[in-house]
Amino acid sequence: MRQGQTVFDDDKFHDECGVFGIHGSDDAAALTALGLHALQHRGQEACGIVSYDGESYHTHKALGLVDSTFSNVGVIERLKGRSAIGHNRYSTTGEPALRNVQPMYADMDFGGFAVAHNGNLTNSQILRRELVERGSIFQSSSDTETIVHLVAVSRKTGVVERLVDALMKIKGAYSLVAFADGKVMGVRDPFGIRPLVLGRFGDAHVLASETCALDIIGADFVRDIAPGELVVIDNDGVKSIFPFEKSANRFCVFEYVYFARPDSFMEGRSVYEMRKRIGAELAREAPVSGADLVVPVPDSGVPSAIGYAEESGIPFELGIIRNHYVGRTFIEPTDKIRHLGVRLKHNANRKFIEGKSVILVDDSIVRGTTSRKIVEMVRDAGAREVHVRISSPPTKHSCFYGIDTPKSEELLASGMSAEQICAFIKADSLAYISHDGLYRAMKEPGRNAKNPQFCDACFTGDYPVDLTDFNQGKA
Amino acid sequence: MRQGQTVFDDDKFHDECGVFGIHGSDDAAALTALGLHALQHRGQEACGIVSYDGESYHTHKALGLVDSTFSNVGVIERLKGRSAIGHNRYSTTGEPALRNVQPMYADMDFGGFAVAHNGNLTNSQILRRELVERGSIFQSSSDTETIVHLVAVSRKTGVVERLVDALMKIKGAYSLVAFADGKVMGVRDPFGIRPLVLGRFGDAHVLASETCALDIIGADFVRDIAPGELVVIDNDGVKSIFPFEKSANRFCVFEYVYFARPDSFMEGRSVYEMRKRIGAELAREAPVSGADLVVPVPDSGVPSAIGYAEESGIPFELGIIRNHYVGRTFIEPTDKIRHLGVRLKHNANRKFIEGKSVILVDDSIVRGTTSRKIVEMVRDAGAREVHVRISSPPTKHSCFYGIDTPKSEELLASGMSAEQICAFIKADSLAYISHDGLYRAMKEPGRNAKNPQFCDACFTGDYPVDLTDFNQGKA
Amino acid sequence: MRQGQTVFDDDKFHDECGVFGIHGSDDAAALTALGLHALQHRGQEACGIVSYDGESYHTHKALGLVDSTFSNVGVIERLKGRSAIGHNRYSTTGEPALRNVQPMYADMDFGGFAVAHNGNLTNSQILRRELVERGSIFQSSSDTETIVHLVAVSRKTGVVERLVDALMKIKGAYSLVAFADGKVMGVRDPFGIRPLVLGRFGDAHVLASETCALDIIGADFVRDIAPGELVVIDNDGVKSIFPFEKSANRFCVFEYVYFARPDSFMEGRSVYEMRKRIGAELAREAPVSGADLVVPVPDSGVPSAIGYAEESGIPFELGIIRNHYVGRTFIEPTDKIRHLGVRLKHNANRKFIEGKSVILVDDSIVRGTTSRKIVEMVRDAGAREVHVRISSPPTKHSCFYGIDTPKSEELLASGMSAEQICAFIKADSLAYISHDGLYRAMKEPGRNAKNPQFCDACFTGDYPVDLTDFNQGKA
Amino acid sequence: MRQGQTVFDDDKFHDECGVFGIHGSDDAAALTALGLHALQHRGQEACGIVSYDGESYHTHKALGLVDSTFSNVGVIERLKGRSAIGHNRYSTTGEPALRNVQPMYADMDFGGFAVAHNGNLTNSQILRRELVERGSIFQSSSDTETIVHLVAVSRKTGVVERLVDALMKIKGAYSLVAFADGKVMGVRDPFGIRPLVLGRFGDAHVLASETCALDIIGADFVRDIAPGELVVIDNDGVKSIFPFEKSANRFCVFEYVYFARPDSFMEGRSVYEMRKRIGAELAREAPVSGADLVVPVPDSGVPSAIGYAEESGIPFELGIIRNHYVGRTFIEPTDKIRHLGVRLKHNANRKFIEGKSVILVDDSIVRGTTSRKIVEMVRDAGAREVHVRISSPPTKHSCFYGIDTPKSEELLASGMSAEQICAFIKADSLAYISHDGLYRAMKEPGRNAKNPQFCDACFTGDYPVDLTDFNQGKA
Repeated sequence: MRQGQTVFDDDKFHDECGVFGIHGSDDAAALTALGLHALQHRGQEACGIVSYDGESYHTHKALGLVDSTFSNVGVIERLKGRSAIGHNRYSTTGEPALRNVQPMYADMDFGGFAVAHNGNLTNSQILRRELVERGSIFQSSSDTETIVHLVAVSRKTGVVERLVDALMKIKGAYSLVAFADGKVMGVRDPFGIRPLVLGRFGDAHVLASETCALDIIGADFVRDIAPGELVVIDNDGVKSIFPFEKSANRFCVFEYVYFARPDSFMEGRSVYEMRKRIGAELAREAPVSGADLVVPVPDSGVPSAIGYAEESGIPFELGIIRNHYVGRTFIEPTDKIRHLGVRLKHNANRKFIEGKSVILVDDSIVRGTTSRKIVEMVRDAGAREVHVRISSPPTKHSCFYGIDTPKSEELLASGMSAEQICAFIKADSLAYISHDGLYRAMKEPGRNAKNPQFCDACFTGDYPVDLTDFNQGKA
Repeated sequence: MRQGQTVFDDDKFHDECGVFGIHGSDDAAALTALGLHALQHRGQEACGIVSYDGESYHTHKALGLVDSTFSNVGVIERLKGRSAIGHNRYSTTGEPALRNVQPMYADMDFGGFAVAHNGNLTNSQILRRELVERGSIFQSSSDTETIVHLVAVSRKTGVVERLVDALMKIKGAYSLVAFADGKVMGVRDPFGIRPLVLGRFGDAHVLASETCALDIIGADFVRDIAPGELVVIDNDGVKSIFPFEKSANRFCVFEYVYFARPDSFMEGRSVYEMRKRIGAELAREAPVSGADLVVPVPDSGVPSAIGYAEESGIPFELGIIRNHYVGRTFIEPTDKIRHLGVRLKHNANRKFIEGKSVILVDDSIVRGTTSRKIVEMVRDAGAREVHVRISSPPTKHSCFYGIDTPKSEELLASGMSAEQICAFIKADSLAYISHDGLYRAMKEPGRNAKNPQFCDACFTGDYPVDLTDFNQGKA
Repeated sequence: MRQGQTVFDDDKFHDECGVFGIHGSDDAAALTALGLHALQHRGQEACGIVSYDGESYHTHKALGLVDSTFSNVGVIERLKGRSAIGHNRYSTTGEPALRNVQPMYADMDFGGFAVAHNGNLTNSQILRRELVERGSIFQSSSDTETIVHLVAVSRKTGVVERLVDALMKIKGAYSLVAFADGKVMGVRDPFGIRPLVLGRFGDAHVLASETCALDIIGADFVRDIAPGELVVIDNDGVKSIFPFEKSANRFCVFEYVYFARPDSFMEGRSVYEMRKRIGAELAREAPVSGADLVVPVPDSGVPSAIGYAEESGIPFELGIIRNHYVGRTFIEPTDKIRHLGVRLKHNANRKFIEGKSVILVDDSIVRGTTSRKIVEMVRDAGAREVHVRISSPPTKHSCFYGIDTPKSEELLASGMSAEQICAFIKADSLAYISHDGLYRAMKEPGRNAKNPQFCDACFTGDYPVDLTDFNQGKA
Repeated sequence: MRQGQTVFDDDKFHDECGVFGIHGSDDAAALTALGLHALQHRGQEACGIVSYDGESYHTHKALGLVDSTFSNVGVIERLKGRSAIGHNRYSTTGEPALRNVQPMYADMDFGGFAVAHNGNLTNSQILRRELVERGSIFQSSSDTETIVHLVAVSRKTGVVERLVDALMKIKGAYSLVAFADGKVMGVRDPFGIRPLVLGRFGDAHVLASETCALDIIGADFVRDIAPGELVVIDNDGVKSIFPFEKSANRFCVFEYVYFARPDSFMEGRSVYEMRKRIGAELAREAPVSGADLVVPVPDSGVPSAIGYAEESGIPFELGIIRNHYVGRTFIEPTDKIRHLGVRLKHNANRKFIEGKSVILVDDSIVRGTTSRKIVEMVRDAGAREVHVRISSPPTKHSCFYGIDTPKSEELLASGMSAEQICAFIKADSLAYISHDGLYRAMKEPGRNAKNPQFCDACFTGDYPVDLTDFNQGKA
């Protein structure tokens, strides 16, 4: 467990990163800070903004949350200029040191170049070794720096051409924003695994990982950036380039299940609606007869629980109360009282649970330790029966595309059947949404096994992008 | 507005303080830290613990949250001993300096004395002046220090007798925990305005502001401390003393409406259940015909909204999404973008709101500025109609009993009718729960005007305890 | 050894405290900061200033040096007003916590009262116990707070009268500055053990521990405050009061030997001149035949070494070079290299020492460990002979009057003869100045054994003020 | 003036940097910390150590002094290994940010490479531009990073060969220590402008800027590294390489005048002795008839003043007392009292100055503002006459070889004759040592105008190394 992590957090896949970019507003840095704040759920470890005022680049990066890092008017005022890009980091590669915080910036022969990236490259170690042999010096352990060096050593003319040259070498899942030569650029990888949207704020254009970052500043949503698309935003407007060969779209389905904010729209779908639809689908697939209450595991299980409750007609109740003040550090209890850990974050609402048959709705089970404690807490509060319903299929495989997951062997579902897991967490019953059920909730007819409509590698092991470093023992 | 406060926070009455005490456990300090964590909602400004190991007192106090202050094993280990008392502070009197952080400690002729207090004394300024004239030197601006000096100068023999001597001089609302001479003591004021409960953890006895602080450590709830009761806990067990003349019980009804944690029980009532019952009562008193959705203002409006939805049969929906990462400081936006402020914390869930008639359920309207912005945000998201329902009566009067409220003249309801407030916040309709409706939700037949069953001074101006300092122009 | 202390510092008596006060200048706080800076050698642990603007008191106190604490214009600007008092602290009683930092301030019935003190009370523990029994609450372990409480509980009318009332109760060595009721007050104890001078800066009057604090601001020296004198400075000028019975003057002779800055004048004598005269006296009392060089132990031995060299005609040479960057913390070396410690601060100048007979001049030997290392270092650099000459008599007794000294049993000279000490430090010869020689250097005919002209208790054990707490086992 | 600088410091040339390296001791990092402490006078802004344990490199760098940065046992323990190099920095190129702190480290294809450097490259801007065009990314503004990149991109095989390849491209004054591939390397530039010495500590070999860094750890001095020499130290011992064409030796004469510590030996000369000899030469060249006292400006003028006093027979006296507690920050006085600034650091010893004709000995006059204030302070203390004698020739030219000097136009002597300067500082007379007198003091027959024995460019404008960047407008 990471130092400072609470028991609960450990049993989720972790959010990755969020990016934001804007060109054409006098308040570029302040709007970027607001956008990053709206994207805070995508990365809480560190954040940074690089702005450009037509002559100079200005950078502010720090470990910590957006609202403390950018709460100071002075900081925002020093980030002068009408263009800015920003990043929230939840470390996927690279230890949590300041030198790994994005955006990364470098002086190149054509001037400054800044880039920030959500995702993970699957061949960055191999590229890094080649670059070091060539004489490039890396300052960080972040895969983003590989992109910077590839741009630096490109022999092409023109920033966009050099970025494309770099993109042709990298593999993986990425949505990136970059800035150079008066242009804000945005790219999604050929499979479109990670999200990136385009918005408009008055005369300015905006790029962001999710639409909630447009909403916070009152920007209008224009469209999703397409898989494999590179957009170039400058004073002439928005230009679209498709440098890659056409790939199948494989958007990450887990964004709908857990990562994205419920008020965001992604690829034309409302995240909140998708979660309710999964809950409803789950109610049809895995009903519980004689149940008295549908109780969400807060906060991520709430929309699915509402969907389950509406579909099943069983009352929805906040049977577990969350403590809003659990921070990133917490009391390291003595051995004697370590088993109390789970209650730092949650407490059962005894009044409504006592003597009842409870349906607990959660989004996923990773290692299972937390689920077991929650089931125990609900039983301790007097529940007669505890039925667990999970709004994703069993997570059996690691993600190599920008999500922080345990190794496969640490994933409970990689080595246990649902029945075994049910026994492990001591529930009366356990059901996951099926693969096809999940796809139906997404308004698809079902999973197309030949050309799956989403990246669902964590459920199926079907990885759309080569795991080059991993296969060569580098990752 | 307090420095660092967000726009939203400003429009609530603020929680006051939380206290915790334990006698008889080897983990006294760690358990106190956990208890304070569960009571964090009662005060986020500062916290402190004093422990006693049979020979020496150990103190750790800091500005900030419990989980950062006490996250360090070393800190907990230094707080040796089998007895401890702790405090969460939201400043009611005294500026936010470290010297005001409780528990307060003093060396007296009989040894050490420590005390922590939730509430507010209504004659502390007058007492303070008398003590200073006598030669007492105050180090803080906290009214708790008045109690310490009264104990120090008491001519009685014995700690309990000196504490009683001090209590006979003070007026106000208070639940306090104290430690001296191997005894943990707990007191509620004669009217029992603020809460205090007794629990049992193995062989140890526990005092806490709310039952959620018992739950977090797995302690059993024994009973509420009675109004006017002083309990003395030592190695011989729990002794109960009633030093005051009998008063009427006047527990703060706003604890049910907003302050307490929904999973707590107070005076035999489940807070969560009371909130749902208020929502149901409100649905009966103030229905909205043709409404499509019941939407809570997160997070405090959720239980009432569930109650309203269940009673009315109108679907409950999370139509407003809360950003969980709003901290105590935030981006101070430039003038141009200041109007965006409200969205730092909330975003409307457009998918579910567009074209709908929405019932917004909130717990109170203080100054009205935030309510106006939320109504506007919901309309911007496409709502056809916005009906606001408030789960408390209009808040017309300041609290002098330990709650941080604006002066009466700043309270919107002190100068406006509900119709005027409805126009101010630009809602299609506005209704508050009635006084009698609130009492009915509390399972009373209605408000007993002669002997009200609760302190409801903020709604009615009926103050049970003399406002001595205030009436003499001292507060 | 105190944490963070270097090996060398440990073998000196430590400076005590410095005080400064000013009334009548618009730059009161800035001038006080400068004065404290000039007095930094009297206390490096903490410093503080209290100013008064006619309505309110303003305080800034911190652990650390004056130049870092008061380097900020904002800090000085907040210390508004035309009157201020300040203090440098080297802890004599009370651990080094911020609550012990002076000036101490209290709100009393007549208004604010601030006081700062150089010296040590010899009956403060007994007084403290009486005050606590009476109901006074102490916040610090500093003896200065005893004075504050005595003023607070005095039944006299008028600030000056209450201060006198307090002074009549305390015993010890003290020079204090106080502020209340528009008056800056200065007091020296009846024996005048610690220094205090009066100066004039334009229309303003100044009090300071040493004249160097007048020089730094360009103030004129007016006179020493007399032993037992209380001066009251307000808008009407300077008033002098002698509340005590007349005592003999017993100024601390060690101020001349080591504590005071060489550019200060004390009781009509130049400190630098006195040190040179001691060196000359020592050359007459303890000549070294055939010596090649007189080498001071930097920096305190320099003036005496110059005096010795001039009197003896032997060349003066900087044979030991001091590293100016030794701070309060330093590398804690591993065991293997711990013996290198002494060289952190000093290095022998081999070029001038090799093959020579060297006279090392130092001001005192306390525990002897450092002297031994310096002699060894000089021999390692090639000295043929090393003769040590000490410009004070053997220090055999602890100081109870405000100087930080080891207990008597830890003082080398309390248990060893000069011959034994010479063997311990491995010098070829060792001589101390005689008692009479020291008094002759002070331009006295010799020591008057019945009525010594100075306090020389650390050499003679002749304590002018009762050691009340010590004799009752309280100190 | 740099932020935080005192008035006095501003009128000196500033020290540059200090380097230290060791191979073969279990206490490598601790010994390096001690060595850097002894070299603290060469750079107070920042310091760092890189150690190597046979497998991994360990780095600790910080802004601030050595004794605070490395005072922690934990820090030293983390710097594992038997080899280490370290650096004290006084910024000459590059702003004072942490990323500019040396040693610089990079991962290269052959493994890690660390380097630290005292001096300044005169063609680093041009090299940097070429490297950036090639695709190298610079992280700092330090010229040391240029060396790192040159090593990285070298096509030679072997670390030593690649370092030589880099050295052949750079111009300037430099003494550097480097570490790679199990070898500690040391280099002096072909003219030997900056110092570097070799020492032996048991089985370990040591490199250091000055011999005082050998003395502090008790290491034996072996020899100066020769101009243009590269030494390679590994488990096989010390190997010497001379990669450059033979140049004339041009050691910096100002090291003797001011920069080096007086206890160091450089190129076979004792620094303290050289300073005394300059003082004596000055007494012969510029005697003052009827003078009463020779007074040094502390602390740098002391040895020359002793030399002057001995030669002239006029008594030496500490007529100016230095405050030892002047730190890097200080009270920013209000306008009214800004003129007091000079006395923050110094005070005249009035007793010895009053009525006297005083010879003030200082090492240099840069802008003259401080000298003017000191002369005024001495006159204010009552001096009858003030004669200033300077132990260096007039400083008319900027240094480009690693010393922080003002631009030529800001140097007082570049635009004024000695007579004009005498009038400016309001002295009764002023004399500088002559060029030939300085060389005689160095035990040379005089300055060889064709092949000067030292670099004296700051006095003569005769720059031994091309100022490439400067001449192309890049520096």
